[in-house]
Amino acid sequence: MNEIVYTVTGMSCGHCADAVTGAIGGLTGVEHVSVEVDSGQVTVRSADPLPIESVRAAVDDAGYRLAGA
Amino acid sequence: MNEIVYTVTGMSCGHCADAVTGAIGGLTGVEHVSVEVDSGQVTVRSADPLPIESVRAAVDDAGYRLAGA
Repeated sequence: MNEIVYTVTGMSCGHCADAVTGAIGGLTGVEHVSVEVDSGQVTVRSADPLPIESVRAAVDDAGYRLAGA
Repeated sequence: MNEIVYTVTGMSCGHCADAVTGAIGGLTGVEHVSVEVDSGQVTVRSADPLPIESVRAAVDDAGYRLAGA
């Protein structure tokens, strides 16, 4: 079990949270996603470690940005 | 043809605009809805005048508020 906290910028409301949750939740192996809009913190639990580029691409495709790295 | 500009508060992003557009666009007789997120201005064109309470209810149900009146 892996749990990583990412920071995503650009989220402003619950719809944004839903979009990011759906995007990351659709990645293979993701078991749970929780999002805090105000802080931009996105906690992702997965069976195996996720390739950071997959997470970044999912966030980008949803219209947001993964901070750092 | 009727065109009225409402002010809707609480919208913060494109998803919010989509939600309000969909909610008001679903009202009977509505022909076109355009939304400016920053100003909250929502322009609604309809064949006949819309009951304000219908517009208010649609906006409320979507999670936003119709300003004034």
